[in-house]
Formats: sequence, C-alpha cells, structure tokens
Amino acid sequence: MLSMEPRYRLVISCPDRVGIVAMVSSFISSHGGSITEANQHSESATGWFFMRYEISARNLAFSVDELRESFASIAQSFKMSWHLSDSSKPKRVLLMASKQSHCLADLLYRYNSQELDCEIPCVISNHDDLRSMVEWHGIPYHHVPVDSADKQSAFDRVVELVEQNQIDTIVLARYMQILPPELCLRYASQVINIHHSFLPSFAGAKPYHQAHERGVKLIGATCHYVTEELDAGPIIDQDVIRITHNDSADDMVRLGRDAEKSVLARGLRWHLEDRILVHGNKTVVFS
Amino acid sequence: MLSMEPRYRLVISCPDRVGIVAMVSSFISSHGGSITEANQHSESATGWFFMRYEISARNLAFSVDELRESFASIAQSFKMSWHLSDSSKPKRVLLMASKQSHCLADLLYRYNSQELDCEIPCVISNHDDLRSMVEWHGIPYHHVPVDSADKQSAFDRVVELVEQNQIDTIVLARYMQILPPELCLRYASQVINIHHSFLPSFAGAKPYHQAHERGVKLIGATCHYVTEELDAGPIIDQDVIRITHNDSADDMVRLGRDAEKSVLARGLRWHLEDRILVHGNKTVVFS
Amino acid sequence: MLSMEPRYRLVISCPDRVGIVAMVSSFISSHGGSITEANQHSESATGWFFMRYEISARNLAFSVDELRESFASIAQSFKMSWHLSDSSKPKRVLLMASKQSHCLADLLYRYNSQELDCEIPCVISNHDDLRSMVEWHGIPYHHVPVDSADKQSAFDRVVELVEQNQIDTIVLARYMQILPPELCLRYASQVINIHHSFLPSFAGAKPYHQAHERGVKLIGATCHYVTEELDAGPIIDQDVIRITHNDSADDMVRLGRDAEKSVLARGLRWHLEDRILVHGNKTVVFS
Amino acid sequence: MLSMEPRYRLVISCPDRVGIVAMVSSFISSHGGSITEANQHSESATGWFFMRYEISARNLAFSVDELRESFASIAQSFKMSWHLSDSSKPKRVLLMASKQSHCLADLLYRYNSQELDCEIPCVISNHDDLRSMVEWHGIPYHHVPVDSADKQSAFDRVVELVEQNQIDTIVLARYMQILPPELCLRYASQVINIHHSFLPSFAGAKPYHQAHERGVKLIGATCHYVTEELDAGPIIDQDVIRITHNDSADDMVRLGRDAEKSVLARGLRWHLEDRILVHGNKTVVFS
Repeated sequence: MLSMEPRYRLVISCPDRVGIVAMVSSFISSHGGSITEANQHSESATGWFFMRYEISARNLAFSVDELRESFASIAQSFKMSWHLSDSSKPKRVLLMASKQSHCLADLLYRYNSQELDCEIPCVISNHDDLRSMVEWHGIPYHHVPVDSADKQSAFDRVVELVEQNQIDTIVLARYMQILPPELCLRYASQVINIHHSFLPSFAGAKPYHQAHERGVKLIGATCHYVTEELDAGPIIDQDVIRITHNDSADDMVRLGRDAEKSVLARGLRWHLEDRILVHGNKTVVFS
Repeated sequence: MLSMEPRYRLVISCPDRVGIVAMVSSFISSHGGSITEANQHSESATGWFFMRYEISARNLAFSVDELRESFASIAQSFKMSWHLSDSSKPKRVLLMASKQSHCLADLLYRYNSQELDCEIPCVISNHDDLRSMVEWHGIPYHHVPVDSADKQSAFDRVVELVEQNQIDTIVLARYMQILPPELCLRYASQVINIHHSFLPSFAGAKPYHQAHERGVKLIGATCHYVTEELDAGPIIDQDVIRITHNDSADDMVRLGRDAEKSVLARGLRWHLEDRILVHGNKTVVFS
Repeated sequence: MLSMEPRYRLVISCPDRVGIVAMVSSFISSHGGSITEANQHSESATGWFFMRYEISARNLAFSVDELRESFASIAQSFKMSWHLSDSSKPKRVLLMASKQSHCLADLLYRYNSQELDCEIPCVISNHDDLRSMVEWHGIPYHHVPVDSADKQSAFDRVVELVEQNQIDTIVLARYMQILPPELCLRYASQVINIHHSFLPSFAGAKPYHQAHERGVKLIGATCHYVTEELDAGPIIDQDVIRITHNDSADDMVRLGRDAEKSVLARGLRWHLEDRILVHGNKTVVFS
Repeated sequence: MLSMEPRYRLVISCPDRVGIVAMVSSFISSHGGSITEANQHSESATGWFFMRYEISARNLAFSVDELRESFASIAQSFKMSWHLSDSSKPKRVLLMASKQSHCLADLLYRYNSQELDCEIPCVISNHDDLRSMVEWHGIPYHHVPVDSADKQSAFDRVVELVEQNQIDTIVLARYMQILPPELCLRYASQVINIHHSFLPSFAGAKPYHQAHERGVKLIGATCHYVTEELDAGPIIDQDVIRITHNDSADDMVRLGRDAEKSVLARGLRWHLEDRILVHGNKTVVFS
C-alpha cells in the first residue's frame, strides 16, 4: 500500500555517544515534525550507532531542502553519515533481466499492483525474449546484447540508459551477466542482486546443481548489494526452502524460484523505503 | 547470556503526540544515561504510542528510585502508563506444572544454563511426579493437589506461596487446571500460559485431537497472558509445525511439544526483559 | 517441468488387508509396467489403505483403456475406490476470479512457464477488470456478473461454460462469490478454493481483519476442496507468515497475498498430479 | 511413542529394474506379513532404487532370522544391499559430549520420556562437567580426557567402551574433538554429528562467529554422518533460524542451540527407525 501522505525519511549512522537521540528528536519536534516510525541500533562491538526516522511532513514548517540545510550542522557535530529522502519522490528503478522471467514478472506484478513504491522507467535485458511481457506493463524495453568479445560497449550503453533515465537503484532480476568493477563501484549500495543459493554456500554458477551434488536438505536464495567481488556483497535478506532426496536439480530450480522472488521483492521493498544501512560488508535492516 | 552491567528498562504507553521521544530522550541524556536499546511503536488506528528504552546505569547520576521520582512529572504530563525496572533485580518466577514435563524441563534447563534472566524460588504442581527433576535443579517443589470438590483451598495455597515467595510472574507450563477468575484478575498480565494450538483455533481441551479431527496441515502453539476467558487472553507469540496425513494425534502430541517449548521459552524471555506491552487484548512485542 | 514421457497414475483407496501391494505391483510388472513413483499410507485408526503409483507407459503392453479393464476385477475383489489417469491428457482447469488479481496472475504465470501440467480453456470472473491480463496470456475471458437478486442465472452460465469446455477442475482464485450447494455437490473434490486464513480460524468474511482484531502473531492461507459448508471442506495445504504489532490489517492483506499464492499453486499442482486422496473430510497428500 | 508390537524393518537399495516391488511385497504377503509402512524412491539420474518396509511381525510365520535366510536369495538376484532389523531390539546408542550440555540434555530428556526408541548404555565426555546430569538419568558416565599429545590412547578407550557396550550408533552431541580417520571408517554411517551451521557454509571451528562476520540473515544447524573429511559427510537434516543485525555472535550461539537440538534429535530418530539410506555422499531419508 502506498503511503497516504508525504513523509521524510532520515537515515543516520555515526559513532555512538550519549545524546544523539535527544538531539535529533528534539530538532524534529521543535519544528513540528511528528515521528511516525523510529528505529535505532547500537552496535556495541563496533561502537556504531544507526537510526531511521519516518517523519510526517504534514505539520512540518520546512521543505525537505530547508530541513536538510538546518540539519547539516547537527550532523556534522556528530560525524554522521546521513541522508534525508522524501517519500513523495519515489526512487527510480532499473530492472535488468536475461531470459528467465520469474523475478522480473514478480516485480512487475508488484509494481503494477502498487505494492512497490517506485518508478520503473525501463527494463534492460541482454535478450529480447521478455519484451512482450514488459511492454504489456507499459514499460520501455531495451535489448542490450552482451557480446563476449566486447562487453564494454554493452555496459557503456547500460550506463547511458541509467543516466538518461535518472536511475537511483538497479535490480539484477536474474541478469546472468557479471557487472564490470567500475560499474559496481560507481553505483555502490545501489545495485541489488538475487543469488539463487543461501550464500556463502554455492556462490558462482549453477548453485542448484552444486546444492544437489552436495545433498543439502535446504536450498535458498540471497538478496545482496553488488560489490566487485562476485556474490560477496552485503547481504540484505535470505530465505530457504526444504527439499528432499526426491527433488532433482530441476525440481530445485523450480522450487527455488519462489524463494528468489519473495526474497528479492522483500529486499527491494526495504531498499525503496530506506530501511537498509550498509556498514562495512554488512547491513542493518530496519524491517 | 545475562547482561554484564546493570541496566534500567523504561517502558511507556500513552496517547501519541509530538515531542514524546524528544522529552524522554532528553531527560535521560541530560542525566548522563546512555540508551543501549530503543524501540517505539505508533499505532495510527488507535492513536497510541509505545516505547521501551534500555538504559545503561553506569554513568547515570541517579539510583532507580530517584530516576522514578524525577520522571514522574514528565509521565503525568503525557498521561503515560509506565514502569521502570532494574535488570540487576531479576523477576521472581513461579513455574506451575502438572504431570507433563516437557515445558517445565525446558525452562529449568534454560534457567540452569543462565539463558533466562530470573529467579525461580519454587515450582508448584498438582501432582508429585516431577519432584525429583525439580529438586535436582536445587529448587523447592510444592505439591498442591487440586480436589475437584474444593478447588478453592488449593488456589488459596497457591496465592499463599506466591505471596511468601514475592513472585512477579507465574508461568503455567502445561498446568492443566483453570485458574479461578479472581486469580486471573489479581495477577493480570503476570500469568503466562502455553496453549497447544494456534489460537483461536482449537481452544479448550485436547487441541491436538481437535486438529487431527479437522485434518489441518499445520499444528501450533500459542503463548498468551491469562485472562478470565479461557485461552482468549493477549497473544504473546505463536509458532506452527508442518504435519502430514501420516501423523496420528499421538504424533501431533509429540511433535507439538517442541513448538510448545520454544514458544513458551521465547515468550517468557521477552516478558522477563520487559519487551511486552499489553494494550487492550493485544500485545506490542519489542523483540 | 512437464514430464518427458507419458505416464499412468493409479490411485487407490480401500479397506486395508494383507496382499494389496503384492497384487497390484505384480499386476503391473507382469505387464511390463515400470513403477517410477510409489506412495502408500495405511491408516491404523480407520483401517483404510491409500496408494498412488506412477507407471511408465513406455514398455507397457496395454493402452490406458485396456489397463483399466483388466485392473477392474482386482479392484473389485479388494473393494477399491480407484482411478487411472494418463499424464499425456492433462486436466482441463477453469480459473474463477473476482477483482483481486494476485492468485490469478500467479497461476497464469506458472501455467505460461509450464510449471503446471494442465490446460486452461478459459477464465470466468464476475467483474471485467482482469480481462486484459488474461487475454495477454491467450486465454478466453468470460465476464459472468453475479446479480444478487438472481444468482441462479449466473451459476447456470458457469455450469454451461464448465460443460462446454469439458472442465475437470475448478479453481476459485479469490473468487468472492459462494458457490450454490448443488454446484458443490456436482463437482465434489473438483473445486479448489484458497481461503486467506489458517482454517479453522477466521472462516468467512474479512479474515485478515478478524486476525488483526484478535492480535495473532501468524497469519495464514488454506487451500481446500469446496463443500456445501463454507470454508469447511477437506484441507489440502496451509501455510503461515509471521507478523508483528507493526502490521496493520492492510499490511496483513499485502503480506498474506504471498502465502495465498504459494499455497494455492502447490495445492493445484498436487491435484493435477493426482496426489490428493479425499477420505471423509480429510486428505491424504502424497507430495 | 514407542511402537506397541514388534515390527521388522526391511531396508533395501539396488539397481532399479522392473519387478522389485512385486517380488518383495509378494514374498512378505505370502508369509502372512502385513506391511504397515512403505517407502520407495527411484533415482532416475543414477538408476538406483531404494525402499523401506515396516512389517508387522504379529502374523508372520517366521522369526527374524528365518526371514533373513529366506530373503537372501531374492536379495542376491536383485543385487541388493539390504538389512532387516527388529524393532523389539532397539539400537544401542553412545552419546559423546564435551562441556556444552544442550544437545546432550535434550537427547537425555527425549530418551527419558520414551521419545527415542533406543538404549543408551553410557555417555562419554572429555570433561567431567556433565556427570551429575547424566547420572541423574541413571546412565553411566565415562570421563575420557583427550590429551593433545596422546590422542590415540583416548580413542583406544573410546573404542574399548564401544565394543564392551555393544554400541550400534555413536552420537557426537557437540563433542568438540575430531575423530581419527580409522574410527570414522570403522563405524561408517554409524556416527552422527551435529554441526552448528547450514553446511557447506561455515565448516570447521566457530561457525557462528564466521556467520556473524559474513553478515548472514539465517543461521543453521546440520546433522550428518561422520566421514574422514571434516564436516563433509552425508547430510541427514538441516534447519535454520532467522537472525537480524541486532544479534551478536553470542546471541547466535544461544539461538542456534535450539536448531541444533531439534535437528540432531530428528536425525537420530530417523536413524533409529532405519529411515536413512546412505548412497555415495548423500542420503535418502524416508521421514
């Protein structure tokens, strides 16, 4: 369900110390802001503090830009990493897929039924198979083939489309190509991938076949931010499905699709609502 | 794991309005208190606000009594229901059981391995079967038989033991007797029961047999506060276990024990840590 | 994945006695049939026996009709209820929906990606909203409005379409109308419904709102065969999703959709593969 | 629940071909044996066939030894690996533990409440800490310290106790020592270990700390047969528990204990009931 009225989301991480909450909450209430949802986390091992406030913009005396400006000095004094987003300006999401349609179809369905609070300006695929499905949803489809002899030109085209469409978030919905390192760096913590195993088990190619070979009794899916190292970025969410000796590798592929779909949709939803804070190679998820 | 240093837990519920968090957090930080864990919940449907702060007592200028006194006026101005507890004074818990031992044994094991932060001054049962197990843990065992012709005298004895032992919390660990209404009222939100079904399905007697009769594919357990109405009090936690046509009612009894144990232990843990706020017939659980 | 080669499925239930398996398996192997999957269940409480054989038709000397004929005398001597189906003749499934699209869209997706081994000759809805989605899949869409003053004529039209399209199985994919009793009887064990609660809790209207009101910590979905008594037919499958005090009734509606989709798809798949045997008001599911 | 009357369990694996079931079931029924539970599995990838029959011994004309003798020729003609066990002669199980008590306490509790159909002639530990708990259950406790400079003499003592007590099955209930290869070989498919991660992730030492370091959102436990290669033997069962950024490595240790206990108990139960067939490095589990 989309939120009824505009809200601001203030997301902060900084070294922990006495008085952060008092300072931030006083700042907001003193300007008439009402906190509709609050999450905090103090990590004793690292001495780090994380917080997310959802603030009703109704009675706030400020625009989002004014709020940003006046909060900046508080932020500086506490050495905060922070950002403030406006729920009335949903993130712009690029979906990238290959031939397999299950994750893409699931996200498009949720988008269409207003379950995901975002804009999807376009879809990119290295194959042309899913065009009709995407276009039925009224979304432009870009076929950007990846030539193994010249991957660079394909990814140049991807970057071009990302820039043209003012993309905030890239979702690899079973996009079977590995992004080049410079793209991973450029869009750090903005590219979400779904991997079809419970990482760190079975990273890389054909994880269901690896799982079948090993004889595990649970298969899984992992949603994570993409980093330069393959399948090793900060984990957002994971889930598993119980299997038996009766399930072939092909059965696992089929059963696993349901886990992939739900884990990716959940992770993306949290990302769109600014609920995920990356710290080092781990995430704080205020779900 | 028991907490290393004493902490205070401030638990509040009140009508929602702007400035509560700012006021409370400023109060605490102004006295040198460091908030180590914070949870909040605003219920838009009812306009009610709930919060729980865990406060490091190390640098606090106050004793718990002084803190209580100075907080009282803030509390009054916001019409708060609230309490402040001191983690260095663990709750005193009475376990009540009957003949079945699984929940009792599980709680005693967790108590013994310091997983539950409480004192267990004694155990009461209407049968004498579990005496040896309880006494092996060094805990006094009171056999209080319940004569169906004179239940009153049994429950008088229970109240006497509760008062003598300064009990804070009563756990019905598969105690098969129904508490009289005056006891439910007297110890409202202090008596935790485990019921062996996913309530509201199969309230009352022999829930696994009811479940078997109906042919459900999941059986469950529900941990709830006891109220005058049987199996209808505020639900703390629930869990389910998958079963098949292959499972007889006896198999369900066996399989369900594991759900009962874990749900009761989890609910009790949250209660001991003041994570459960009762509002009407529902709970807010800051787990 | 659709099966590669034609298979016969022999499904039997009868009073248990010594020698059933020997008789049936000898019959099959003596005619060159290879059993590729076998399931049996003896219910000691009722003295009833259930079995399902999947038989490779490759080396079988018989057509399915000849097999039926020659098996009939064995079946009679053991007082068997039985049927033999041919996997090369997939069941013909009618999907019925209302305005909500999630279950319908999910089933159409799975059908399209060949995950469900069936034919879907048409979709019926009492509203016209989902026409475009259905027709994009190349499936005829029949808008059969239900006038509350004259429901009979609507259901007459439904029966007409069922007969015209030689439907084997009807799926109520969140079809919000109650089928008249004569239809329930006429298509007994052939109509599958998805109810959005873990039955028997919260039968009837608005189960998520009932669940929210009661304050449960798990919500669920139940797939069952439709009988004359509302939401009381034999349960095929159930699943649950964990919720918290943070979830409004609307959140439950959203979260529950995922459980509804997967439970219905799983139940339908088992039905299509003749894995479900109804006995009294319960099911044996050879999953 | 222990079975009421003696049963035989016939467990078979062999190359798949037409007529196995007919031959075996005819053999049993022709001698008056009633099959109370039957499981079969055909593995198309390897062409292997697995089966387990539970046979009521009540009306059988044979003793278990006579049955074995007369079945031998059938077995040979089908090149079967097979064994026949008698449920009235429960397996003799050695529990081995170290300092941590949760798995040991859980198994002793289930043993005591007759949930596990076995004999436990003794417990071995490399520490003396758990003696009182074990002896309260009336079971002899052997303290066999493992001197890192002379592990051989400790394991010689273990073998001696295994032989003296006619042990069938060894359970490593968080026994922190690595068994020497000759012991793994000698008792192949008879030694069950519980590892505190969802293997193959986090094999080896301190898996919860590895999991915390990696930032996974699920932790798990794996029950497997011990082979020479550490934590790499055939997997019997696995389960996971959801965790959050809020859980420290110590919290994971505490939460994971519940998964370890239930996974080990379930795996042991299946082993005791001859439900697990090892094939290569994988298991078929007829649960």
